[in-house]
Amino acid sequence: MRVVVPYAAEEPKTRLADTLSSDERTAFAEAMLADVLAAVRAIGRDPEILATAPVEADAPVTVDPRPLTEAVNAVLAETDEPVTVVMADLALATPGALAALFDTDGDVVLAPGRGGGTNAVVARHPEFRADYHGTSYLDHLDAARAVGAGVEAVDSHRLATDVDERADLAEVLIHGGSAPRGGRDSSSGADPREASRARSWLRRAGFGLADDAGRTTVERDAGFASRS
Amino acid sequence: MRVVVPYAAEEPKTRLADTLSSDERTAFAEAMLADVLAAVRAIGRDPEILATAPVEADAPVTVDPRPLTEAVNAVLAETDEPVTVVMADLALATPGALAALFDTDGDVVLAPGRGGGTNAVVARHPEFRADYHGTSYLDHLDAARAVGAGVEAVDSHRLATDVDERADLAEVLIHGGSAPRGGRDSSSGADPREASRARSWLRRAGFGLADDAGRTTVERDAGFASRS
Repeated sequence: MRVVVPYAAEEPKTRLADTLSSDERTAFAEAMLADVLAAVRAIGRDPEILATAPVEADAPVTVDPRPLTEAVNAVLAETDEPVTVVMADLALATPGALAALFDTDGDVVLAPGRGGGTNAVVARHPEFRADYHGTSYLDHLDAARAVGAGVEAVDSHRLATDVDERADLAEVLIHGGSAPRGGRDSSSGADPREASRARSWLRRAGFGLADDAGRTTVERDAGFASRS
Repeated sequence: MRVVVPYAAEEPKTRLADTLSSDERTAFAEAMLADVLAAVRAIGRDPEILATAPVEADAPVTVDPRPLTEAVNAVLAETDEPVTVVMADLALATPGALAALFDTDGDVVLAPGRGGGTNAVVARHPEFRADYHGTSYLDHLDAARAVGAGVEAVDSHRLATDVDERADLAEVLIHGGSAPRGGRDSSSGADPREASRARSWLRRAGFGLADDAGRTTVERDAGFASRS
């Protein structure tokens, strides 16, 4: 089983441009990537990175500058062994959530993302191909059926939460690396002993939870905001 | 085990006011409530409704006009038996997702909602009390620990998705009642044979999926929009 983590190495996380500078977005994206790689390794799998440009990371890197769909399908085409594709911005992914993905039987197993995306796919059928355009979750259901593959979905908030925009940062502060049994520091949620790299990065960058008309959002300490 | 479904009977779903008329919001909220009740019954539990005002529904109704926290805590205080509280707007809840909730051991079991809310809680500890203000998921972690209760969290996208605003409607169209094995109609996602009441209601009201700069959102057929 190959475990491929696609990573947009150039100008990652552009939808966070209202919140983070370009350098900050790169650093935060790298922290999320490191979290995903660590979670994959924690369940005994060897992740590999599929990057649009060279990137320094603690895993083998294949560079393919093509769009996501084409790059992933090149991997699917070059092997008949099962391939799992896990997005690099799943900052809430834990070993347990990924284990549930890998433990689900099915020729094709999908982890839907919020808003119709596909945040992880286990492709055990050699003819399955990806299509990340549009509402990819529905397209992947169709693509699996089109090749006669049985499809299963994994129901996981952690895997459904890709971190794209400012509101998603609250999810990282609330759930990033936390185990519900642990204690927590009062301002930010999860047990700091178990905080993910992405959550720690946000905390160091001055982010905390805020309440905005009943919704939990994030705010940034003014000392940081003025420098960014 | 009592299974309580709180329901705001007067002016429900106000954050959908940009999308649905007042009467439509009530009808849609009732459809979601009926879906939740059906999912609870499908796993052999008897749901009861805790409503802010009288409501016609296919379950026993207790009327308590107080805010959610006070009304729920009155139920928790009147019994020592375990109580599960499931929100009425979990339009993606399936019997399987609820079974995972009930099957999770723990004095207190929480299903976090997106944005720090608590969409379901199983309270098996007689001293646990709810607090739905603010980031209630973190508050409930604290409240459980404060009474010495062991806490577990359930990782479910279906239970994390409460339907509050327009973007959430896309989740209902994509996942409402769908099983990934079924076929789907081309425009809207899930197998119509398995569509939830909420998803069917949205379809009848003219809603379909739309693509907005790479995000899946909803659009309404102009014939309906002009009349609403």
